[in-house]
Amino acid sequence: MLCLKTSTNSGWIDVAAANMPAIMRDHAHCEKKAALNALNLIMRYPDKTELVREVITILEEETAHFKLMVGELAQRGLNLGLDKGNPYAQQLSSVVSKQEPMRLLDLLLVDCLIEARSCERFTLLAASEAIPPDLRGIYHSLMASEEGHFMTFVEIAKTYFPHDVVDKRLEEISDLEANIVRSLTNQPAMHG
Amino acid sequence: MLCLKTSTNSGWIDVAAANMPAIMRDHAHCEKKAALNALNLIMRYPDKTELVREVITILEEETAHFKLMVGELAQRGLNLGLDKGNPYAQQLSSVVSKQEPMRLLDLLLVDCLIEARSCERFTLLAASEAIPPDLRGIYHSLMASEEGHFMTFVEIAKTYFPHDVVDKRLEEISDLEANIVRSLTNQPAMHG
Repeated sequence: MLCLKTSTNSGWIDVAAANMPAIMRDHAHCEKKAALNALNLIMRYPDKTELVREVITILEEETAHFKLMVGELAQRGLNLGLDKGNPYAQQLSSVVSKQEPMRLLDLLLVDCLIEARSCERFTLLAASEAIPPDLRGIYHSLMASEEGHFMTFVEIAKTYFPHDVVDKRLEEISDLEANIVRSLTNQPAMHG
Repeated sequence: MLCLKTSTNSGWIDVAAANMPAIMRDHAHCEKKAALNALNLIMRYPDKTELVREVITILEEETAHFKLMVGELAQRGLNLGLDKGNPYAQQLSSVVSKQEPMRLLDLLLVDCLIEARSCERFTLLAASEAIPPDLRGIYHSLMASEEGHFMTFVEIAKTYFPHDVVDKRLEEISDLEANIVRSLTNQPAMHG
């Protein structure tokens, strides 16, 4: 599924379902950071017309998801609270080259894999009977959007790099992503 | 108007109308930076529920304006291009206190004044017969939104600070803003 080379540990969904306030907060922060990543890509590559056009739409959607989740938190009497960071995304980002043009390719493919992993986790949240139906419905609706973002990042990469170069680097980074996921300890976080 | 203590130099609108591609690009970058400012406020104050709620709506609107203007550039065969910076906003931001809680108040009031000045300049662009009617229509539609943001930033400030403290500091920062505007040399930029 979605170029992911390993599935999330089977124990994560139980930890998540038992800690929904923490999952909701962390998810809201993930949407915020996805919006920030989109802005950063645009700021770094403002002369790349196709990238700017596609990433603005992603920015718009991540912003809408962020607003949605902050609203869901508020409905439950919860605030956004502090961002506890995302060790998974930090580890994955360590693969990004410091040199252009590989830096652009790596940034796009790391974003792509984070979206793919988020999509897999939304699938788990949407299917869990331990999670309230209204929240399951929200996660179900977000699955399609995140899958779309995953594909958009690959398509942007293939606008600027040969397809075989993109495919080979995606293989490499998805191996690393799988290793990181295998090392996770089922924390109550979107990528925990 | 809008707490601004001086009007834009009368020569600016002619320079702007004669350089619309530069104005449109600079305006798109302003919307992008307004979205980034909104995200930065949320990241700095995630435990302030009212601020987060109000600023997410601003983020959403600035993102929509950014997308609109990048689309208008594309329709004219123009890309976003490099961000040439905004000396006006940089000078104004130098007033921001390094110490909380004054830092929050200053950040909100600087954003408020930038929105107010943008609103004044949209009014000039919307009224200029030297500018194509479709663009004048867009600037007219943006006036109301930026005026709304101006007021929202003051309202957020008054949620967290005594009204007289907010009013006094807004007086001080708007004096500085007027001095900066008087020193501008009619460059082809939104705040030039």
